[in-house]
Amino acid sequence: MASPPPYGRVWNFSAGPSVLPVSVLEEVQRDLLNYGGTGMSVMEMSHRSKDYDKIITGAEATLRRVLDIPSNYSVLFMQGGGTGEFAAAYLNLFASKAVREKQRQLGRPLSCDYLVTGTWSKGGMKEVRRLGGHPRVVFDGVGEASYTGVPPVNEWRLGKPEETAFVYYCDNETVHGVELPPDAVVDAVDPSVPVICDMSSNMLSRPINIGRFGAIIAGAQKNMGPAGVTLVIVRRDLLERDDDSSDAVRNLPSVLDWSYFDSTGSMPHTPPTFTIYVCGLVFKWAEEQGIRELERRREARAKLVYDEIDAHPEFFRGRVDRAYRSRMNLVFNLPTPELEAQFLAEAARRNMVQLKGHRSLGGIRVSLYNAMPQEGAETIVAFMREFYANNR
Amino acid sequence: MASPPPYGRVWNFSAGPSVLPVSVLEEVQRDLLNYGGTGMSVMEMSHRSKDYDKIITGAEATLRRVLDIPSNYSVLFMQGGGTGEFAAAYLNLFASKAVREKQRQLGRPLSCDYLVTGTWSKGGMKEVRRLGGHPRVVFDGVGEASYTGVPPVNEWRLGKPEETAFVYYCDNETVHGVELPPDAVVDAVDPSVPVICDMSSNMLSRPINIGRFGAIIAGAQKNMGPAGVTLVIVRRDLLERDDDSSDAVRNLPSVLDWSYFDSTGSMPHTPPTFTIYVCGLVFKWAEEQGIRELERRREARAKLVYDEIDAHPEFFRGRVDRAYRSRMNLVFNLPTPELEAQFLAEAARRNMVQLKGHRSLGGIRVSLYNAMPQEGAETIVAFMREFYANNR
Ligand SMILES: Cc1ncc(COP(=O)(O)O)c(C=O)c1O
Ligand SMILES: Cc1ncc(COP(=O)(O)O)c(C=O)c1O
Repeated sequence: MASPPPYGRVWNFSAGPSVLPVSVLEEVQRDLLNYGGTGMSVMEMSHRSKDYDKIITGAEATLRRVLDIPSNYSVLFMQGGGTGEFAAAYLNLFASKAVREKQRQLGRPLSCDYLVTGTWSKGGMKEVRRLGGHPRVVFDGVGEASYTGVPPVNEWRLGKPEETAFVYYCDNETVHGVELPPDAVVDAVDPSVPVICDMSSNMLSRPINIGRFGAIIAGAQKNMGPAGVTLVIVRRDLLERDDDSSDAVRNLPSVLDWSYFDSTGSMPHTPPTFTIYVCGLVFKWAEEQGIRELERRREARAKLVYDEIDAHPEFFRGRVDRAYRSRMNLVFNLPTPELEAQFLAEAARRNMVQLKGHRSLGGIRVSLYNAMPQEGAETIVAFMREFYANNR
Repeated sequence: MASPPPYGRVWNFSAGPSVLPVSVLEEVQRDLLNYGGTGMSVMEMSHRSKDYDKIITGAEATLRRVLDIPSNYSVLFMQGGGTGEFAAAYLNLFASKAVREKQRQLGRPLSCDYLVTGTWSKGGMKEVRRLGGHPRVVFDGVGEASYTGVPPVNEWRLGKPEETAFVYYCDNETVHGVELPPDAVVDAVDPSVPVICDMSSNMLSRPINIGRFGAIIAGAQKNMGPAGVTLVIVRRDLLERDDDSSDAVRNLPSVLDWSYFDSTGSMPHTPPTFTIYVCGLVFKWAEEQGIRELERRREARAKLVYDEIDAHPEFFRGRVDRAYRSRMNLVFNLPTPELEAQFLAEAARRNMVQLKGHRSLGGIRVSLYNAMPQEGAETIVAFMREFYANNR
């Protein structure tokens, strides 16, 4: 039997906000009323103070080392979550010098290409429509819009490079459990077109070839920290504006303006100081583990659960094509809704919580983020085995 | 001598983020790894869980009691800080049915009126200009744009009610130390015109006649909690949209959309869960003190310091007209920059920190928020007295 979590804690399989490393929480707790001899909580520090400057610049520096972020990329800490960046990605790209020059050359508005693999890429596309944009649908699921994977590349209806401002996709669909193999999209897109990627739910779980992306956006509340801060990693040339961009910036509130955040060290106004501090501790923890080790662990955890699913596919009904199964959010159904309810109830009695599938999909969702120890995966697999034996 | 703060803490006069009640921090610390027997930190909870629902609805209910918020007002928890709301206030009002109908009656665009009393009302106005709006300047400081008070009401250049979408002002200018007497603005504005008020830095420090306002916006990071959540209290009829508003909503990203937050219980997407939790504890603390008692204390703390300033006005050079002196941010200069530097250095040696004036203004700023005990005010007054005796 795997050992239980410390402090009377449960196995927390929440899809986000989600489990954090115990050692990080311990450090937060220890320093809560008096951080490092400053005589105050990080919550109480002016964001313009020297002490806080060390915290935010330290967080960025650590993340740069962990992910090996090239120096021609900016790292921004913003507010507004993934949803804020759905708008920001579109508004900032269309305000950029690069896109506006290309548009002038074409003589008409550029389009932007959306790969729809589930709820979150669809959400990104809907936000563009809301804002008056006209995204192109490269594909919308496989078959009849069921989000069980990705169609073959030769079926993608990508726009012509000279007509396309950017290509947008979500690397890991948290609701549908669809994750793309590394570089699958950047390999398929003309290098002249920036690829914008939502990595909210698999950030920090494997190395990334950041140099191949235009921008990566990610809400913190899965692998990086508490909800309330959003990470943007963006190629610097895309932050440039031309003199003519004032009508485009007109639609871009300061709090979503990448260039403004870049030129002010993420401080055009008060940042979510404490949340960034906790993220910085998680980055430090990730650096101690090493990004390759985090990748090895994510593969090992997911394999344990998928092996159990594959052993009894008529009982544990995975819905995603093998090639696109998420290592972070493992979704499956049981033969009946009654069995699913029973599964959730029995799991809860054994200290395994937040296993219910997203309300739009139902079923079971096992989220296995970085801070979930191997023991957590072992514990749920042991339970799945037993549940199968008792209820098949 | 006043007793020193506990846990080796300092007297923290930061203008924001700023000091929080020790009892709140103790509770946060105690529950950090396992909140109320849930087996997880509040940071790790799904925002859709029953446990978190209790936290966020509890926070709202407490705040409603503390401030006696009328039932025809919505309470929203958003991201993006005061700066986000500079944009949101303008965009939401101009997307509202009320403003759009009035505009149709007038046959041309309505204007919006800005009372400029310092950095933050000016910031609010600048954001409107950035977004393509055309704010009217009701006044810009007194005299030659020095932000030392407010001109007499008969000099305010308010627009005609039928031509005005809203009137905007900042109740307490955190940088310049200008605070308006309760109801000074709502008394002067035609009741048909909604008044939008930024109370970021004096929220929760006195009772408010909320029913007289269209909307109140406030970043949390002074009297309410950590940075990273913004409170909006808005009259429900201003949230209505008409069928014709899609072109206005086109400029309004989801994360700034008051109506969207209202219709989803502040959860169109993941809220800053932990930050809201801490605010909820501060609201509970404020309820235990009582809003009238908090007002009494703010007056008593400020009086102590202003009395010392007034005793030696040639040495402690207050810059704000008496009628408009802030109870939250008390700003003054000393005869020379050298004396100011010496004041800050000596104060720091005695555990009094973050007293430097805003970088745009220099001088000294003593911020006395709700969580600053009377002892803190006594300690700095004793120091001021001694500093005067040694350096006059
Ligand atoms: C992949 C992905 N993108 C975007 C979002 C939306 O993020 P937020 O709720 O922070 O706006 C989520 C939320 O879970 C997500 O999982
Ligand atoms: C009165 C007032 N309004 C607005 C702001 C801007 O708030 P934020 O930094 O959260 O955007 C501040 C910041 O200190 C403020 O004091």
